[in-house]
Amino acid sequence: MSEKLISSVFRKEILALSAYKVAEANKLIKLDAMENPYTWPDNIKEQWLETVKDCPINRYPDPEARQLCKTIKQSNKIPATSEILLGNGSDEIIQLLLMALAENASVLAPAPGFVMYKQVALSLGLDYHAIPLQAESFALDMPLMLESINKTQPSIIFLAYPNNPTANLFKPQDIAKILAIAPGLVIIDEAYAPFADASFIEQLPAYKNLLVMRTVSKLGLAGLRLGFIAGEPAIIEQLNKIRLPYNINSLTQVTADFALNNQALFDQQTQQICIDRKLVLNQLNNITGIKAYPSSANFILFRTPKNQATFIFEALKEHGVLIKNLSPQAGLLTDCLRVTIGKPNENKAFIEALTAIIDSIKHS
Amino acid sequence: MSEKLISSVFRKEILALSAYKVAEANKLIKLDAMENPYTWPDNIKEQWLETVKDCPINRYPDPEARQLCKTIKQSNKIPATSEILLGNGSDEIIQLLLMALAENASVLAPAPGFVMYKQVALSLGLDYHAIPLQAESFALDMPLMLESINKTQPSIIFLAYPNNPTANLFKPQDIAKILAIAPGLVIIDEAYAPFADASFIEQLPAYKNLLVMRTVSKLGLAGLRLGFIAGEPAIIEQLNKIRLPYNINSLTQVTADFALNNQALFDQQTQQICIDRKLVLNQLNNITGIKAYPSSANFILFRTPKNQATFIFEALKEHGVLIKNLSPQAGLLTDCLRVTIGKPNENKAFIEALTAIIDSIKHS
Repeated sequence: MSEKLISSVFRKEILALSAYKVAEANKLIKLDAMENPYTWPDNIKEQWLETVKDCPINRYPDPEARQLCKTIKQSNKIPATSEILLGNGSDEIIQLLLMALAENASVLAPAPGFVMYKQVALSLGLDYHAIPLQAESFALDMPLMLESINKTQPSIIFLAYPNNPTANLFKPQDIAKILAIAPGLVIIDEAYAPFADASFIEQLPAYKNLLVMRTVSKLGLAGLRLGFIAGEPAIIEQLNKIRLPYNINSLTQVTADFALNNQALFDQQTQQICIDRKLVLNQLNNITGIKAYPSSANFILFRTPKNQATFIFEALKEHGVLIKNLSPQAGLLTDCLRVTIGKPNENKAFIEALTAIIDSIKHS
Repeated sequence: MSEKLISSVFRKEILALSAYKVAEANKLIKLDAMENPYTWPDNIKEQWLETVKDCPINRYPDPEARQLCKTIKQSNKIPATSEILLGNGSDEIIQLLLMALAENASVLAPAPGFVMYKQVALSLGLDYHAIPLQAESFALDMPLMLESINKTQPSIIFLAYPNNPTANLFKPQDIAKILAIAPGLVIIDEAYAPFADASFIEQLPAYKNLLVMRTVSKLGLAGLRLGFIAGEPAIIEQLNKIRLPYNINSLTQVTADFALNNQALFDQQTQQICIDRKLVLNQLNNITGIKAYPSSANFILFRTPKNQATFIFEALKEHGVLIKNLSPQAGLLTDCLRVTIGKPNENKAFIEALTAIIDSIKHS
């Protein structure tokens, strides 16, 4: 009875879908999710609690989150001619964008890319076109991109900048070419902007079809679930119509506003992470059999000896370190693992464990 | 350029839609949004801050919100054979349900009803059937409901119990009949359950197609944005696939869990609101020209003299009291206003202002 009911009510693409799985991190060193490992010093925490204390949680939140929007526009240097929209993390914004598309729309993104683009597109029954990046360099394959865009006429193109999980920045001139020929919207996903010295935010006034998406997650506020998208006011206005009116809860509004007004703290943490990224990259490349790719994000993609990725991933867990196994995604990610930059002692534990595991493979 | 781009990318139903507007409440007595007017005593607040303090907001939230789910199941007496799913308020759950429907699905609900059912259905391009309630009693028009269900074969039927904005409970035997003939899912929206001595939660095991939706908003936590839906595990499993993995942020998880473990406080506030509801209902009905309808919720619908609703609504604002003007929605709501039960002094200010306004109308 249930089964028949379910298959008659729900979209067939959903029945075929698997839920997004998140790894258990019980007591492991957690280097799997691109989180900022640093918490706040006590004095900042005390100030924050003072702010939170007076938050009227018995009342609905400000549906337009005016104070927070003002702070975000300032701290992210959003051009005066652009407007922004907030979401529960980038995830909700991706969902909003894709929900808004006309029927039979298609969506295009390079592969490998952030998994939620595909997951949400499929769950909405949209056509999703994954266009392979170039092997090893992970650069956009421009002839293939341009051909695919012409052929599939996507309503939305997602470009993560830097890209996840490859950690590289695509060439700005390639992105400019895509912006020029795209028939619909181009979303530059700058989730990892705090770790990259590059952004398209300044370019917003130059392109009507450009939207830039960001999140405070990687900055150190993953628990808050707050993302935003910036672009042409007329486009944001349409998205605002289907945004759930109270989508950003009061505690997130107050806390994110507080945090973004303490930018110096995050800048310091971000700088430390960038310093440690360089160290980890060198250490990884010093391990025989490992090839680590350059990173403009707070994580590093690395290739392990052939057919060893899953073994190494599991062995790292045995050593108490959780990273991300990308090898099952196959394609360019075969044999690849991804590690988030943690605190120095966490990175050290990871490098030591990996070194020991690779040694044990060589001697077995 | 923008205009052409927008009309080629977005669903035409969205272009035609208006955004959900929320009234400004600057310094007004806020009796428009069914909020619980009471805050927490200092000792509870201190305990809460102690809990929030240790919340790791630099980490992603628990994607399954296990601790909170456990607490919700307990405090809402969810049957052991049912499963639940959490959302950012009922709003996100309504969106999730409607996003999941197969193409060309239709949705049915009595009218007047909660506006988000229609708003989200239209924004997703679904057919929406609004079936009028009986005039004055606001009971389900059963011959019309059964006929409409047979004709339109809705994938989802929404029944708010108590209904918003009419505040009445539909007859349980009418709902049972609908459950028996519905070809798809029946969602009983119990947002106002804390103020009604009635629920379908106990009935969950009896109907495979029944889902019960609740929220903590009206209980006193509107700022947190937390709702849940309970039902058959196989149905919840499908919805879980399209739930965004980190949809409930860390601060909401911790705070809602804390609050639901202090149930006695809310019970006390709820009881006070129910006592005051009776008082306000009597006072309203003592004003000549006003007809107030019985309420099982924390608000009261009342009818004003013909063609005076908007004038009275605006005059109340002049007197410093914000309620909700439903008259523009027309149909059964013509000439109707809705007031939320506030604190005794707020209710008093409302009744005094309304009395003065009605007097001024009579003498003009």
